[in-house]
Amino acid sequence: MAQKPSIPKGTRDFGPSEMYGRNYIFNTIRSVFQKYGYQCIETPSIENLSTLLGKYGDEGDKLLFKILNSGDAFAKVEPSALANSNALSLKVCEKGLRYDLTVPFARFVVQHQNEISFPFKRYQIQPVWRADRPQKGRYREFYQCDADVVGSRSLLSEMELVQIVDDVFAEFGIRVCIKINNRKILYGLAEVCGAPDKMIDITVAIDKIDKIGLDNVKAELFEKGLSSEAVAVIEPVLTLEGSNAEKIEKIRAILKESETGLKGVEELESLFNLIDKAGIGQKVEIDLSLARGLNYYTGAIFEVKALDFEIGSICGGGRYDDLTGIFGLPGLSGVGISFGADRIYDVLGGLDLFPKENTGSTRVLFTNMGEKEVAWLIPVASLLRKNGISCEIYPESRKLRNQFEYADRKGIPFLAIVGENEVAEGAVTLKNLATGEQKMLKPDELINALNY
Amino acid sequence: MAQKPSIPKGTRDFGPSEMYGRNYIFNTIRSVFQKYGYQCIETPSIENLSTLLGKYGDEGDKLLFKILNSGDAFAKVEPSALANSNALSLKVCEKGLRYDLTVPFARFVVQHQNEISFPFKRYQIQPVWRADRPQKGRYREFYQCDADVVGSRSLLSEMELVQIVDDVFAEFGIRVCIKINNRKILYGLAEVCGAPDKMIDITVAIDKIDKIGLDNVKAELFEKGLSSEAVAVIEPVLTLEGSNAEKIEKIRAILKESETGLKGVEELESLFNLIDKAGIGQKVEIDLSLARGLNYYTGAIFEVKALDFEIGSICGGGRYDDLTGIFGLPGLSGVGISFGADRIYDVLGGLDLFPKENTGSTRVLFTNMGEKEVAWLIPVASLLRKNGISCEIYPESRKLRNQFEYADRKGIPFLAIVGENEVAEGAVTLKNLATGEQKMLKPDELINALNY
Repeated sequence: MAQKPSIPKGTRDFGPSEMYGRNYIFNTIRSVFQKYGYQCIETPSIENLSTLLGKYGDEGDKLLFKILNSGDAFAKVEPSALANSNALSLKVCEKGLRYDLTVPFARFVVQHQNEISFPFKRYQIQPVWRADRPQKGRYREFYQCDADVVGSRSLLSEMELVQIVDDVFAEFGIRVCIKINNRKILYGLAEVCGAPDKMIDITVAIDKIDKIGLDNVKAELFEKGLSSEAVAVIEPVLTLEGSNAEKIEKIRAILKESETGLKGVEELESLFNLIDKAGIGQKVEIDLSLARGLNYYTGAIFEVKALDFEIGSICGGGRYDDLTGIFGLPGLSGVGISFGADRIYDVLGGLDLFPKENTGSTRVLFTNMGEKEVAWLIPVASLLRKNGISCEIYPESRKLRNQFEYADRKGIPFLAIVGENEVAEGAVTLKNLATGEQKMLKPDELINALNY
Repeated sequence: MAQKPSIPKGTRDFGPSEMYGRNYIFNTIRSVFQKYGYQCIETPSIENLSTLLGKYGDEGDKLLFKILNSGDAFAKVEPSALANSNALSLKVCEKGLRYDLTVPFARFVVQHQNEISFPFKRYQIQPVWRADRPQKGRYREFYQCDADVVGSRSLLSEMELVQIVDDVFAEFGIRVCIKINNRKILYGLAEVCGAPDKMIDITVAIDKIDKIGLDNVKAELFEKGLSSEAVAVIEPVLTLEGSNAEKIEKIRAILKESETGLKGVEELESLFNLIDKAGIGQKVEIDLSLARGLNYYTGAIFEVKALDFEIGSICGGGRYDDLTGIFGLPGLSGVGISFGADRIYDVLGGLDLFPKENTGSTRVLFTNMGEKEVAWLIPVASLLRKNGISCEIYPESRKLRNQFEYADRKGIPFLAIVGENEVAEGAVTLKNLATGEQKMLKPDELINALNY
């Protein structure tokens, strides 16, 4: 009995129409990246576990997919090793699947530092794998679309990433709000609270404000050991109102005792000055409740939310000061963003924004009415393709109804009927399947009729 | 001490210039596939081991990359299981990495049979993984570029694949020979030798003729238990000379006692009649020594060799009659081809055929001579990008020499110098880095100067 086929939980098959939408997303993002001089690289799906372990926290380590060593992996393992499963899994697995694109990129930069001219602007669009519990919108294999600049501390790079976000979502027709904050401000805030060692606790707590609300964030801060005075300092900052310039002035006043905090305010102000010059079309706002989970960020942080569709952030990123240090190349500052292709797909679908025209499908199907007719039309089909028109010949001489149905289900807009008459005339009958309109055309007329 | 970064043996990093070449290959193949109405699908990198095991022979099973179950994989394993490593590895691994694109495609067709309109023409360009011993030109992660039609027995599909091969290599500018054979002829040959049960032995032996020569193939056939008479029947067939039509007549005479063999000859003849109508530009020839390793082929088999560069086959495929049967959907005939992107890359590089123009790199670098100058040029750079011209602003105000060097190393052809003078004039000094020529241009003149 044949096995019933299935795929692992959390993975997906993509059929033609999903791939059309996905490729539209990847191609749009790629072409914007390229317009700003970012260059494509690719790294292997499989990395040494030593490259991956310890880079994503304890939780991340558990979510790595580990690959069994090839050959007889267990041959040299002593039976006593079974007592400790973790130790055993490390003994029989030396490789794992890529968990994100950032750590492999840092590894790439260090490994190829002599071939790279800095500042290095690279983009990378590849899948990553996480052994997370699958749920709606969370997959075990998904694509990331990242752009990063490393080797410069210039805020022009931050501005450029905001421009890229602006261009990408303008291309998609998605209205967004680009939220910006700065990690140094968050650190300054911890400092003026008298709890500089609690920056991570504070950051983690305020990152939740959208999800759990102000009161619960305050409760969490108390729980982490912050005093009422400290929480009182933080509270107005989280609910700051006004224009970006007004927000900057208010926060500057609150942080006046923190050198790092003021540096953050200054960076934010300079970035907004640059953004003003760049003429960004989308809404850009300072959001001091924006923290982002990953702790390697040290300067600007970004997050993008769709305005007309309810979903989590669809793009995010920030500046990090020492990502390559762990691989032996300290002091290289970088800034990057990552577009969430799966969520963007949902937004485009939900708002009906996928392009309707030129969906990459076949333009015309030649009917197959028998050997003689097909022999005549083979060169006509070749001629169309030479002129860039995608076409098919129905492979079997079946009832015309079946051939119609095939065109219909595949969304092919035109049928080129070639029967005895047409061969005699040296022409085809072109039928527009949407309007029903049909006319007899010579091959060169056919090219004109079918060109976009 | 920081760890020294490296990647697993048999895997590769691809930098910008390699990615440019690879994307050129993938895009060319993709656009030809689309012109013939093939639609893109993608399947997960991770498949259930039950989908993969037993599909590639014992040797293939050993070369599968297995993924350790997530969570505590070893928790429920009894210590005694360690005695049998194979059984243990199956207990703690339920998933593996894709080994080729054909088996996942068969799985896809069966799983989604109700959503698919047959005949189904799909292409798939994705990486595959094999735990093979790495060596020159053999990698553990590499891309396959496959196109298949399933659900039709029409020889028009075979012809179409030959047209696709012809178009792809014409685009690349690579002169090739397309070799064609038919598995039914090989079976017929075994039959007229009186050894129909030895078709696989015979096929495997004659597949080696290019590598080991006629005498060694004969020796291998004797070793497999074939009689001198049998080998005498096979020998002239392997060294057949003449035009395709002459070869067909000779082989028809030899196979006159084998019904299957004659069916193969008839298929080959019909295919060549269709190929004649299609006006193929490349050399197409019958090669009866062509066998191809994979045993699921049942009809036409193809292989493509570069004429001007010494390397193995760069494309191959064939017809199979029951690939989906193993997943519960018998009787679906298909035919497909697979392009070897890595070898094509070597051929294009070796023959210096990669396109020189428009390599996707940045067109112009704006110099950074200070805040005021940059503030002026930011909108100019935006204007260029809106006109489809890729450009960068050097992120830091460093010595002009450093900025020159950056442009040079990145292969950027133009420098747009913006100093105090230029800002005063409302223009940029555009320098062609190849010729040294420079002139001052207003923003709209700049667009014209930089457009291709």
